[in-house]
Amino acid sequence: MENNKPLILISNDDGVISKGISALIRFLRPLGDIVVMAPDAPRSGVGCGVSIHEPVLYQMVRKDVGLSVYKCSGTPVDCIKLSFYTVLDRQPDIIIGGINHGDNSSVNVHYSGTMGAVIEGAIRGIPSVAFSLCDHDADADFEPAGPFVRDMVEKILERGLPAHTCLNVNFPKVKDLKGVRICEQTKGIWVNEWESFAHRGDSQFFWMAGEYQNNDPENENNDQWALNNGYVAITPIQVDMTARELMSELKNWF
Amino acid sequence: MENNKPLILISNDDGVISKGISALIRFLRPLGDIVVMAPDAPRSGVGCGVSIHEPVLYQMVRKDVGLSVYKCSGTPVDCIKLSFYTVLDRQPDIIIGGINHGDNSSVNVHYSGTMGAVIEGAIRGIPSVAFSLCDHDADADFEPAGPFVRDMVEKILERGLPAHTCLNVNFPKVKDLKGVRICEQTKGIWVNEWESFAHRGDSQFFWMAGEYQNNDPENENNDQWALNNGYVAITPIQVDMTARELMSELKNWF
Repeated sequence: MENNKPLILISNDDGVISKGISALIRFLRPLGDIVVMAPDAPRSGVGCGVSIHEPVLYQMVRKDVGLSVYKCSGTPVDCIKLSFYTVLDRQPDIIIGGINHGDNSSVNVHYSGTMGAVIEGAIRGIPSVAFSLCDHDADADFEPAGPFVRDMVEKILERGLPAHTCLNVNFPKVKDLKGVRICEQTKGIWVNEWESFAHRGDSQFFWMAGEYQNNDPENENNDQWALNNGYVAITPIQVDMTARELMSELKNWF
Repeated sequence: MENNKPLILISNDDGVISKGISALIRFLRPLGDIVVMAPDAPRSGVGCGVSIHEPVLYQMVRKDVGLSVYKCSGTPVDCIKLSFYTVLDRQPDIIIGGINHGDNSSVNVHYSGTMGAVIEGAIRGIPSVAFSLCDHDADADFEPAGPFVRDMVEKILERGLPAHTCLNVNFPKVKDLKGVRICEQTKGIWVNEWESFAHRGDSQFFWMAGEYQNNDPENENNDQWALNNGYVAITPIQVDMTARELMSELKNWF
């Protein structure tokens, strides 16, 4: 008998044992069959990175009715790519990243491995959505996000998303969410990005730190504004990065 | 006396000893002072990845009049970020990635570490451009690209680029380039992405391989078409990935 339940593929960049991925499984189990393929250790900040210079392995860590969980030695994008090649018995109906421990709004979309998994989904033409909570704590409270996550996934399963697009959904760290806002990616930058340490006297090593600087704080349309004001920020993201407005000007250069 | 020469910051993902970076230095030395900060080993496919879970080190490998070369243990984006924190004595006038050994057109913009360096430049508001040659060979012939690289860098130094944009320039592997075309990012996907190997009898490991599949081959406006027809493909890229056309539809969802 063919299985007609929606198939939900999940990954993240915090690793397979993170609380955020457990919360996501719990919120979504009633909606379909779930396959998780997630990194065997934290892989935050790897963006859309893939493993080219080393081999990748995966292993089943849990099998239950309607739920299979695998850990993978690769990046989040590797996890998505490898799932299609190995463990999926049919095309997934949706690919979900998260729930991420920490904010993936603004320019973090470029650095986030969780967003990488979801951009990979959009490249493959699968409706894809990333969920992130503005709380890096390993024991962060994902409960307030639950009803929103479930509602959004139901809507995406029902309506789909246009080809080559995905959603970047961020939750502020508040108990009472004010509702959702459809947002633009905020213009911003990381500053004071490094802490330096003496290493064998003469030389130094550097560890990434940094503070986020919002360069457009008054703009009520962007995702940082929504988060700072207690709203769930939904930012639609496109795979096509062409700067179309610049094309005609460039044609005059040559 | 203040130095008024343009300052050119270079990185790549093939590593500091690659032929492509040497070619770039040679082509551009007449145009300004050059600082290179590039990975100490190949880092292809790391996208916009940054090092969060381990420290980063750098070391000078060459110092000459108007040229300083450093190797760095991190990713290409780390290289750019760390340069600003450590070795640059003033704001660079341009950030350049490459010349990459291999094609960074189409969806490769997401996976490429060389594009990562240049997207980081655009995030920081510096005019930035990546150059790539459709030839993975370590001994690839970069000479035909030389006059185009120099002309484009001169134009960018003179005219700048709009904020939050950068250029992704790809060269086909031909001796006689037909000219340049201003392009869109091609819609495509990687297929047959893994080779699997037996590992201790029962289990397997996987090594990334794959073939690129062009999903829009007849479109004369895209970068793959330009490359397949002997043209230099210039694709303007924007940091803002917001899918604006989807925003109004999504507002109806809630």
